Amino acid sequence: MRLHTPTDHSVVGEVATAIAAAGGMVTAIDVAESSNQRLTLDVTCSAADAEHAAELQDAVAAVEGVEVHKVSDRTFLIHLGGKIEVASKVPLKTRDDMSLAYTPGVGRVSMAIAQNPEDVRRLTIKGNAVAVVTDGSAVLGLGNIGPGAALPVMEGKAALFKRFGDIDAWPICLDTQDTDEIVRAVELIAPGFGGINLEDIAAPRCFEIEARLRERLDIPVFHDDQHGTAIVVLAALTNALRVVEKAIESARVVVSGAGAAGTAIVKLLLAAGVRDVVVNDRTGALVEGDGALSPAHAELAALTNPNGRRGSLQEVLVGADVFIGVSAPNILQPEWIGSMAEDAVVFALANPDPEVDPAQAAKYAAVVASGRSDFPNQINNVLAFPGVFRGLLDARAHEVTVEMCLRAADAIAHVVRDDELNASFIMPSVFHPEVHHAVAAAIAGH
Amino acid sequence: MRLHTPTDHSVVGEVATAIAAAGGMVTAIDVAESSNQRLTLDVTCSAADAEHAAELQDAVAAVEGVEVHKVSDRTFLIHLGGKIEVASKVPLKTRDDMSLAYTPGVGRVSMAIAQNPEDVRRLTIKGNAVAVVTDGSAVLGLGNIGPGAALPVMEGKAALFKRFGDIDAWPICLDTQDTDEIVRAVELIAPGFGGINLEDIAAPRCFEIEARLRERLDIPVFHDDQHGTAIVVLAALTNALRVVEKAIESARVVVSGAGAAGTAIVKLLLAAGVRDVVVNDRTGALVEGDGALSPAHAELAALTNPNGRRGSLQEVLVGADVFIGVSAPNILQPEWIGSMAEDAVVFALANPDPEVDPAQAAKYAAVVASGRSDFPNQINNVLAFPGVFRGLLDARAHEVTVEMCLRAADAIAHVVRDDELNASFIMPSVFHPEVHHAVAAAIAGH
Repeated sequence: MRLHTPTDHSVVGEVATAIAAAGGMVTAIDVAESSNQRLTLDVTCSAADAEHAAELQDAVAAVEGVEVHKVSDRTFLIHLGGKIEVASKVPLKTRDDMSLAYTPGVGRVSMAIAQNPEDVRRLTIKGNAVAVVTDGSAVLGLGNIGPGAALPVMEGKAALFKRFGDIDAWPICLDTQDTDEIVRAVELIAPGFGGINLEDIAAPRCFEIEARLRERLDIPVFHDDQHGTAIVVLAALTNALRVVEKAIESARVVVSGAGAAGTAIVKLLLAAGVRDVVVNDRTGALVEGDGALSPAHAELAALTNPNGRRGSLQEVLVGADVFIGVSAPNILQPEWIGSMAEDAVVFALANPDPEVDPAQAAKYAAVVASGRSDFPNQINNVLAFPGVFRGLLDARAHEVTVEMCLRAADAIAHVVRDDELNASFIMPSVFHPEVHHAVAAAIAGH
Repeated sequence: MRLHTPTDHSVVGEVATAIAAAGGMVTAIDVAESSNQRLTLDVTCSAADAEHAAELQDAVAAVEGVEVHKVSDRTFLIHLGGKIEVASKVPLKTRDDMSLAYTPGVGRVSMAIAQNPEDVRRLTIKGNAVAVVTDGSAVLGLGNIGPGAALPVMEGKAALFKRFGDIDAWPICLDTQDTDEIVRAVELIAPGFGGINLEDIAAPRCFEIEARLRERLDIPVFHDDQHGTAIVVLAALTNALRVVEKAIESARVVVSGAGAAGTAIVKLLLAAGVRDVVVNDRTGALVEGDGALSPAHAELAALTNPNGRRGSLQEVLVGADVFIGVSAPNILQPEWIGSMAEDAVVFALANPDPEVDPAQAAKYAAVVASGRSDFPNQINNVLAFPGVFRGLLDARAHEVTVEMCLRAADAIAHVVRDDELNASFIMPSVFHPEVHHAVAAAIAGH
């Protein structure tokens, strides 16, 4: 906030006090201008959300003599003009530089690729480029907000790709939500990319889009909301079971949520050796043979629930070892965890508000994880996707396999050493110097 | 070239002499290693083309005791791994950074755009991003080499966009040459871009693609091979006519080539006031009413050739003031220029080999220009497109108009001051500090 205040410097303290009293955290106050008539103060402070920010502004305006001149929002400030840019890797200072990088020199490079198409990965950006493709239909927890409003998220993803994987990712926000059109658009743009990261596309459309693209393209296609999430969840489960000393083959798992993430998690858990997993959605446990199920849910039911358990989430949780939520806020009562098996593991991953308050869950469970950064054991896709694509590009892979995903999960899990592992530390930090390299090496099969 | 040679240092001079004798230019010789047994020399030299490079290599290998260990090609070296990259504009060092640039902070930015869609240009890369779109059907002088082989050219273009226009351009190489599919693919990816630069798409398909996209999209669509070329040609013509002191309205112009560039040049010249322009293709002058003409050529014939001139290029050139070639190498005999009006102007722009050798043409014409950098008066699209898109993005333009193109041409022409202008200096350098700003301002209408 930029404030105009009386010249009495005691106003600085009054402003800081007012912000603190309203629950804000002051991180900086600068006197930007000082004259005989007035002071101009720049105040930087943290608010919990937009509503709280408005309250802080009111609190400051209520200080005697203070006028709030202008309010900026740090989040919006860093988004101005976008979060990524294109940089040239070649010098373009002289005519000679241009004749190498552009005409006439570039003509020989194009001819070389025309004669030997595999050279395109070596001689162009294709070898390091990933398209981050969305239709804007299931963006974060915000839902179907469309391709333009999805762009800040895709740019953020591209920035993370660069930061953690040294990958050149570009956002492609598609102006359609038709399955056929999405598939065809991605096919058409594929020549310039070494991989396709599908992002925030709603289920069940996302399954068909991914399956058809995988069949048609010779570059890997990876829907991060599915497989990225599945990898980090399996990594977290691996370490949670290391803590409670249970075997994955005998663990009874309940997954809440049968969308993109839930489906992919279940399939990867089965590949990892889990035998007894029950999927719950709003209608209760999915059971094979239930004629009311959608095709996608019927397929999931056929793969799971070997003992034909029926009932609500509360009912199927009884005796389970693991709860994994990728569904909706506050659908799990903390006390229900008491009915689970001893040393229960609870992952409450709904965003931004988890299925159960992690602090409440911790009273009953041995290990609790969530998607939130303000509790221990954050399960964050950023642990997986940069290394996954780094490995795919390094290996010039044509596809991504279940075995690669299993190896990636194992790699993330084992970045946490035995002597570091405990119930409050099952996942490495995204800033851990090893984790992305470990994932890339695991994917590439090194 | 990396050479292994005897330890006698006189070999350095012998190698340099051998290269010079074979017509190569040595730019560097480094002794990379020296031992009792041998020297290792790294020699950098320029060759005219790949064949000449092989000759230079043979010449060096013929020097006694010299073994050519490895040969690299500077052009290929700078292309390795691609010529552009994505960079993050935001810090991602801490968890706090990530919570602003990605979740949860980014969610508020997405919601703001969902509520006010025009904000997408302010809060994302869209405000500065251009898609460089090709189908690989008419790449440089190389023809239909496909989207993968076109990628090095599109990357080079993106690098030039950044260098001269500070624009973030990304190559989109489409795996189709079907008009409907190209139009639809570009429509679908449009939400993430503030402009579309069509590139190296064959005529007549390019006309329909551009027209349909201009109708459907609310961002400007610009086929550089057409309009970029037309702008720089009009700029060059403006200055050539300043030199020979003729008025554009009374100049008789012959254009050789009725493809994408020729068509756009003719239309812009007409808008600039040219009254008598005749278009020649392989079959001779285009005349209105000729039933054998394609639809595109019939349209062009209707706009041009007011006196119904018929005949070959040699015939229609008689008495003309201006020849503009965007066609094929060596189709214009230098002596024919002698039949043109006094103070003839000749632009021979076919790439890489012009319609007439510029040195030969200069014996007959008052002003000669070409696309080549090794003769005076290079006519280079790089003078136009970076500034054109800079101006379009700055103005948040929804379309590009003929008036903008006329202003851009005038801006380029008048970067050359009266006291600088002469028959050998009608075009500014692409490195001129003013030219791209002048074009941007002209486009934006400042």
